[in-house]
Amino acid sequence: MSPSPERLELLREEMLAEGYQAYLVTGTDPHKSEYVAPRWRTREYLSGFTGSAGTLVITQEKAGLWTDSRYFLQAEKELEGTGISLFREEQPGVPSPQTWLTRELPEEGILGVDGSTTPWAVIQTWESFLAPQGKKIAVGPDLLDRIWDNRELEPGKPVWDLEAAFRGLTPRVSKLQRLRQSIQGLGADFQILCTLDDIAWLTNLRGEDVEFSPLFLCFAFVDDTRAELFVHPDAITTPLKNHLEEDGWLLKPYRSFYQTFSQEPLYRKALITPETTNGAVMDALGNRIFLESPSPTTLWKAKKEPGELEGFRRAHKKDARALIKFLTWFHLSIENKKPLSERFCAQKLRDFRAQEEGFLGESFETIPGWRGNGAIVHYNLGLSPGCEIQGSGLFLLDSGGQYLEGTTDVTRTLLVGTPTPQEIRDYTLVLKAHLLLGRTPFPQGTRGYQLDGLTRGILWAQGMNYGHGTGHGVGHVLGVHEGPQKISPAPINQILEPGMILSNEPGIYRRENHGIRIENLQVVEEGFTGDFGPFHTWETLTLVPYESRLIDLSLLTSQEIAQINAYHQRVDNEISDGLTSEETAWLRSATALLGTYNLTK
Amino acid sequence: MSPSPERLELLREEMLAEGYQAYLVTGTDPHKSEYVAPRWRTREYLSGFTGSAGTLVITQEKAGLWTDSRYFLQAEKELEGTGISLFREEQPGVPSPQTWLTRELPEEGILGVDGSTTPWAVIQTWESFLAPQGKKIAVGPDLLDRIWDNRELEPGKPVWDLEAAFRGLTPRVSKLQRLRQSIQGLGADFQILCTLDDIAWLTNLRGEDVEFSPLFLCFAFVDDTRAELFVHPDAITTPLKNHLEEDGWLLKPYRSFYQTFSQEPLYRKALITPETTNGAVMDALGNRIFLESPSPTTLWKAKKEPGELEGFRRAHKKDARALIKFLTWFHLSIENKKPLSERFCAQKLRDFRAQEEGFLGESFETIPGWRGNGAIVHYNLGLSPGCEIQGSGLFLLDSGGQYLEGTTDVTRTLLVGTPTPQEIRDYTLVLKAHLLLGRTPFPQGTRGYQLDGLTRGILWAQGMNYGHGTGHGVGHVLGVHEGPQKISPAPINQILEPGMILSNEPGIYRRENHGIRIENLQVVEEGFTGDFGPFHTWETLTLVPYESRLIDLSLLTSQEIAQINAYHQRVDNEISDGLTSEETAWLRSATALLGTYNLTK
Repeated sequence: MSPSPERLELLREEMLAEGYQAYLVTGTDPHKSEYVAPRWRTREYLSGFTGSAGTLVITQEKAGLWTDSRYFLQAEKELEGTGISLFREEQPGVPSPQTWLTRELPEEGILGVDGSTTPWAVIQTWESFLAPQGKKIAVGPDLLDRIWDNRELEPGKPVWDLEAAFRGLTPRVSKLQRLRQSIQGLGADFQILCTLDDIAWLTNLRGEDVEFSPLFLCFAFVDDTRAELFVHPDAITTPLKNHLEEDGWLLKPYRSFYQTFSQEPLYRKALITPETTNGAVMDALGNRIFLESPSPTTLWKAKKEPGELEGFRRAHKKDARALIKFLTWFHLSIENKKPLSERFCAQKLRDFRAQEEGFLGESFETIPGWRGNGAIVHYNLGLSPGCEIQGSGLFLLDSGGQYLEGTTDVTRTLLVGTPTPQEIRDYTLVLKAHLLLGRTPFPQGTRGYQLDGLTRGILWAQGMNYGHGTGHGVGHVLGVHEGPQKISPAPINQILEPGMILSNEPGIYRRENHGIRIENLQVVEEGFTGDFGPFHTWETLTLVPYESRLIDLSLLTSQEIAQINAYHQRVDNEISDGLTSEETAWLRSATALLGTYNLTK
Repeated sequence: MSPSPERLELLREEMLAEGYQAYLVTGTDPHKSEYVAPRWRTREYLSGFTGSAGTLVITQEKAGLWTDSRYFLQAEKELEGTGISLFREEQPGVPSPQTWLTRELPEEGILGVDGSTTPWAVIQTWESFLAPQGKKIAVGPDLLDRIWDNRELEPGKPVWDLEAAFRGLTPRVSKLQRLRQSIQGLGADFQILCTLDDIAWLTNLRGEDVEFSPLFLCFAFVDDTRAELFVHPDAITTPLKNHLEEDGWLLKPYRSFYQTFSQEPLYRKALITPETTNGAVMDALGNRIFLESPSPTTLWKAKKEPGELEGFRRAHKKDARALIKFLTWFHLSIENKKPLSERFCAQKLRDFRAQEEGFLGESFETIPGWRGNGAIVHYNLGLSPGCEIQGSGLFLLDSGGQYLEGTTDVTRTLLVGTPTPQEIRDYTLVLKAHLLLGRTPFPQGTRGYQLDGLTRGILWAQGMNYGHGTGHGVGHVLGVHEGPQKISPAPINQILEPGMILSNEPGIYRRENHGIRIENLQVVEEGFTGDFGPFHTWETLTLVPYESRLIDLSLLTSQEIAQINAYHQRVDNEISDGLTSEETAWLRSATALLGTYNLTK
């Protein structure tokens, strides 16, 4: 559903009024959130593009949207008829938005940005491109506010206490103490935290202001004596407020955050993270000296503690049960020729998850890609019911849940009817890559990009590849995507450390035909130490059968067959409670031992 | 042979005289060369450590040497008894030299460095550690000059014209024109080139001032009208001088380089490369504005042009013939129980190379590691004859040549006597990793670190690893190690592009026991474009048989066996001219087809 082109025109009038020749819309919120409250869906409001990442640049005559390969097909569809050009990031010959704009912007032209939703690092990048040409970036107000009728306010739903609800977390008192030592160690006097998941982790609080992530809108200020949490005044109950105060956290109104620095003496050094601190905060900091650093909480949060890991394991059992119930229902419905739409399947899956205790909601919008839709990597139904699932084909289903104990993210590719030889071959190759990443130990000190190459190698050997990363971090009852670790081609200089959770999700996509992705979550664990030093290994959290009917055994080694069988046996053992006899029967057949006639490597 | 400890004491006296509490010795020359002329072997002069990379830091009481895993065993031996502590880089718990010194340096302490041999980027890194603590780095004179009796002067041997000697190079006139456009495109007024290989590539000149690399001592200055080459006044003959002048290059004395900027108006922007421009140059630039960028020549030089590749192919055939002659001689000598030392073998190999037309010298010092010495990754004989090769064992032989047409670098692991099961298994696993990297196509846009993970995966699966990179770039009649591309765990954000040459050299090292490394050079080539976009493939340059007697066929797939057989057949076909009947017979037996009884994957 493309938006009214009037919106761009209204914005262009406001740009003229401000003296801007161009305007940048990052599409994020003041906290650099991945999923943003409706108020901040500015990119979607103007362009109709619903993907979770993209940069929109508007001039008086043109407009361009830059997004990554996950969203190429989706953006093509959604931008159709808007007059906004799609720029495919990192493709040969495609200019970056900066390069494009330095050509489009006239001499002495000004690029306007909304300070509150543009990270400082983004502002600096643009400045480094524009300044040498005598062009400028102006950090100003949010122009969308002037043209967006009935724009929603900031949310401020009730905040709840994870520390009380879930045993096994380091108390917020200890986390705060650790952070204070770290701020001091870095040579700063205070830290400003802007990212919702860092603050939620630090305070052991959760909320429901953001779709898919149990986060709440907030900022935080921490120095050696004070710890202030800026939240919606109604969001926290009096008992919780008292409890937080006992733990050293003072509550202040969300909107008063930008004023808070005026009381800080100028000689006090601030610790900020340019990638996540917005321009309005930097404005408020004024001429103060600041140190740039990732927030220490980001790495701490990525390395899960034993209590969190225990929670993840429990959440994954629940999630597996819900998926097994869904899969039983799905295959029976197909057998009985019941009409099924993509949306109905997604809803049904949500219903099964909702039957599980402690279910808080989905961890992202389910991707239910039947046939060619599965090739749209982040396929989004929007408001449509999606396709009917009928005939033969593959059904890519990527979904996840937020539970009180942990977060899940799982992709399985389901078979309906009779598979083609290409579908079987593609599925088997993706599975081989996925199995390789799951079983290969790696030495202490390994970075994610090395494992990316290891995994892709199996597909590269066949001239195949996929246009997304191999794995992302997952938060504990936080965002389903979290850093700093990643398994991707990007030069992310982060060592994989024990306790980090990563997805393992290679894929193959054939446009208009089918998409195949197989995804488990797995934890880095201390493995073994031998003649070649310490190695890490993986513990797999996800417990859902693969699709045996799509496996070509002749392409597998006996090691791979044994790996699948061991996994299926584990699924069968661990997921048994709470299934009906029908579901148990389905699980038994789905996890039946694969033939072991192939006895060579 | 450890140096006299007096040297450190003399240096400490000079440090006191200058008011330095610490002194940094980078061990490089004013050009950040890997192999340096004797004058600049400062690290070795003071510490006795002969490796090609390391940082030496000296205080009044302590001294530490930091080096990477290639040199751990060697440095241990060489530093014994010097009182200098060895710090193993990137090992858990080992502080960086900066962290170490911030602890060792007293309040308001000063770290002295010689400006002319310390790159600007290194100075800046140290400053960023010291400044926040109120400590200082002082860029001063070369203190070694005051204590080093009979120190050699800068070399200035004759420079020769590769453009005249070797057909198929882009003329220096065109290279200069291209560079001028690029300097302008980057927004600079002039460029200062400090690295010897960049200047040699740009001017199509070669020399013999540096051991192992046919380079000559020089600096260069290029702007839109002038191109100045600063060399030893006697190094260039009058006819060549005239020729260079016709091509737009003005010659100036090497030692006048630092004065040259005083004539440049201050408003003119300099293009410099902080990693390779020394502190004395930056001092000479004064308050001028400068742009930081890699030299455009570095990437151009890395992507070999068709004429250079043709030369590489010819050089590799010569090099293979020399090695095959050596291998025949070696195995006959063993058979006939002739006494062989490591050094004698290295000399003999050099003699065989020297028989080839256009041989200029070795491209690095041959590593002839018998048994446990093979586990010392950059094993260096120094002045010793090395071990006697007798009994059974593995002999790791890493060597290379500089020829008029190109540069080689090849490692083979030779078998003497009867192998142990562990030797066979280790060799086969290294070979599998090496074959995988050699045959796997990869999509356009792939970075070296992804291929690093791909290659190591085979060893990781067995809990094995190696402590060096998987592949390095190789120059065309330049340094045997060149960037920017690399196949290593480091976060080097450089895409592998067609025409780049890389080594493929996985290994396994068992301390005191054996070292195994198998190394070919291979070129990235345009491969194919299919459903998943453009892929690159490899062309292998090196043409020397593997050791079939160390291969356990039961660990290989039929694809791997076919790959070895095809390679051996190619070697047999391409290397036949100029061999004696004995050598031909040896080659035939070394390249005999491996059994193909194993018919599964």
